[in-house]
Formats: sequence, C-alpha cells, structure tokens
Amino acid sequence: MLLYHDPRAPNPRRVRIFLAEKGVAYDTIEVSIAAAAHQTEEFRRKNPIALLPVLELADGRVLRESMAICRWVEESHPTPNLIGVDAWERAQIEQWNRHAELELLWPIAQVFRNTNAFWQDRIKQSPEFGEIMRDHVGRRFDWLDRELGTREYFAGDRFTVADITALCGIDFGKVSNLRINAATHPNLAAWHQRVSSRPSAKA
Amino acid sequence: MLLYHDPRAPNPRRVRIFLAEKGVAYDTIEVSIAAAAHQTEEFRRKNPIALLPVLELADGRVLRESMAICRWVEESHPTPNLIGVDAWERAQIEQWNRHAELELLWPIAQVFRNTNAFWQDRIKQSPEFGEIMRDHVGRRFDWLDRELGTREYFAGDRFTVADITALCGIDFGKVSNLRINAATHPNLAAWHQRVSSRPSAKA
Repeated sequence: MLLYHDPRAPNPRRVRIFLAEKGVAYDTIEVSIAAAAHQTEEFRRKNPIALLPVLELADGRVLRESMAICRWVEESHPTPNLIGVDAWERAQIEQWNRHAELELLWPIAQVFRNTNAFWQDRIKQSPEFGEIMRDHVGRRFDWLDRELGTREYFAGDRFTVADITALCGIDFGKVSNLRINAATHPNLAAWHQRVSSRPSAKA
Repeated sequence: MLLYHDPRAPNPRRVRIFLAEKGVAYDTIEVSIAAAAHQTEEFRRKNPIALLPVLELADGRVLRESMAICRWVEESHPTPNLIGVDAWERAQIEQWNRHAELELLWPIAQVFRNTNAFWQDRIKQSPEFGEIMRDHVGRRFDWLDRELGTREYFAGDRFTVADITALCGIDFGKVSNLRINAATHPNLAAWHQRVSSRPSAKA
C-alpha cells in the first residue's frame, strides 16, 4: 500500500494514526501542499479534486477520502477493532466520529484556511468566517468537556476512530492558536493527554 | 422508531429517503427550526448540539447524525443494500458519499446559512464566505458532470446512499438559486432526473 500524504495536513494524519494502531506497514509519497504538488496534472489523475490523503493499492486501485481508507483498512485488518464490533457500537462510533469531524476538525480547518497567511495568495479567504468558526469551536470545547466528564473516550470506554479524528482536529488548531485550556476544560485536556500518549499519535 | 425531523432541512431528508428505499415504517415528530424548537431544553436532551435528525428507538436509545442512523438502519434492514455488499464497494460508496456531503451538501448549506434572510437574526452570517462557497459548488458541478459522463450513479452502476446525499444537497441549493443547468451540465442533469424520479425522492 502506498499513501499519498502531506505530513503537516490533518486528514492524512488520521490515516497514518489508524494504520499505526493496526500495525500495518505501508509506503508513503509526500505531496507537498506548500509546493502545490497536489495541484499537478499527475496528482489529479489520482484525485481530480486535488485532496489528500489518497491510498494506492498494489493492484493499482486508488481510494480517496480519509474515512473510506480507514474503513477499507478496518475490513482488511480487523484487529484491533477501531470502528465497532456490532451494529449499535458501529452506529455510536459513526455518530461520534461525525461529531469529531463536523464539529471540530472541519471548523478548525476553516479557521486556518480563512485566517492564515499560508493561504493568503492561494485561495480567496474570509477572515470574518474564520472568526465565526473560532467562536463555534470554543462552544464545542465547552460541550465536549462536559461529555468527557462521563467517559474516557469520545464514543465510550475504549479508543476508536472517533478519537483519532478529534485528536487530528484539535492538534491542527495549534497553528491557529486554538488550544485546550486545562483550567477551564479539564476533562477535554485529560482526554487529549490520554490519546496523545499513545505511540500512534506520533504517526 | 421515531424520527425527529424538520421537513425543510436536508439532513433529515437523507434519512427519510433512506428509510423509504428500505420500506421501513416509522413515526415522526416535527422539530421546527423556524420556531426554534430544536433549541429547547427538551430537545437538547435528545441532542445537546441541537441538530436534526435524531432517531429514537422503541427501547429509548437515541442516535444522532444522518449517516449513523442510515448505517444502523442498513444493518437492521439489509435489503435493498445501499451502503455496499463487500469491502471494496463499501469503501467506494463511503468515498462518494463523503464527496457528496463535503463537496456538495456542506458548501450548499453554507451558502444558505451565510446569505439567506432566514438566518439573519438567528446566527452571525458571513455573506462573503457564502459567495466563496457558491463559486466552489459551481466548480464541483463541473467536475461531477464529467464523472457522471462515465456511469449512471455517484458510486457506480447502482443507486446508493451517495446518491441520496447528493440529491438532498443539490435540491437544497434551490433556495439559494443554485441549480443544475442542463445545457452546460447534461450528465449531472440526467442523473438528477434519474434519482428524482424514484418514489423515495418524495419522502
């Protein structure tokens, strides 16, 4: 398996952590967003909309989108289970993975896209929308701190793909000065410490 | 099963179409976003972040998030299959469902949230971000018209959940004057006609 990724981008990191938890070996090709390597005609043959990550299998088949890749890996390498062992747990993990993606990772990425100098000459930005999303993330931190007062991990009592998505989202906030304050959000901070201490977090 | 929904919102419609395709009977409770019924303390006990849809099972268990609900229904009512019959098809459908959600439904919803008078006194809007998303959707229509020149449905040769997500996204664009132009996007228009003519589209 060959993973096209950028070491600095949050979505490829989701797949790298997932693969590290599974103990699956794979090769990588770096596609530098800073160098616009994702915009080349060659890379667009792998993904016409120029997004990372992309997984290429030994037989040449190509799979895009972080969660599509994670689901494929889960089915081909079932242990340890990260997406659920029965229908109800799978539904719960999907619910929390979507919360982690749509309420954390996505708005945090929008703060970066719309306010950071990195994108200034690359896309049309809306700093005012970036600030709206920054406020949104603050409210979501409040909510998640309450949730994580009742259990150890996002979707229940064990580490799952929902924690991977949330970790990659929250860590990507640092570049936009979005950080967990342990004084005001102790449960979220304890969860972050818990998941960051896993060896896979370095992937 | 009891579905909390708003008949005008796109995410509850995804679940209603999914259930119609499955032929599953269910009850509904309307939670009017216009009347702020989703913001009440009572509804927040079902979903603390006040989003629709929510599914409540006969035993009182509650499930949030459209795709978590669809996955639960798929496992409890496997026929007709809408999410994939083997690992590779499931990965492909997840890829295309995410494209439909993240590249169509989500940006189309942002155009509405950030430019429509409905939200003017309800949330902080960014009309300039709404216009950025409008341009984005236009480019995605171009891409998807090329894709749908090669096959009948989003994820391949049969109707799947990815078509449901794309249909709900595109139809929700009408209120923001985002429409498929059959002259410039004939393949996308033909696909839209194909999926709209299914009885489930009225759900």
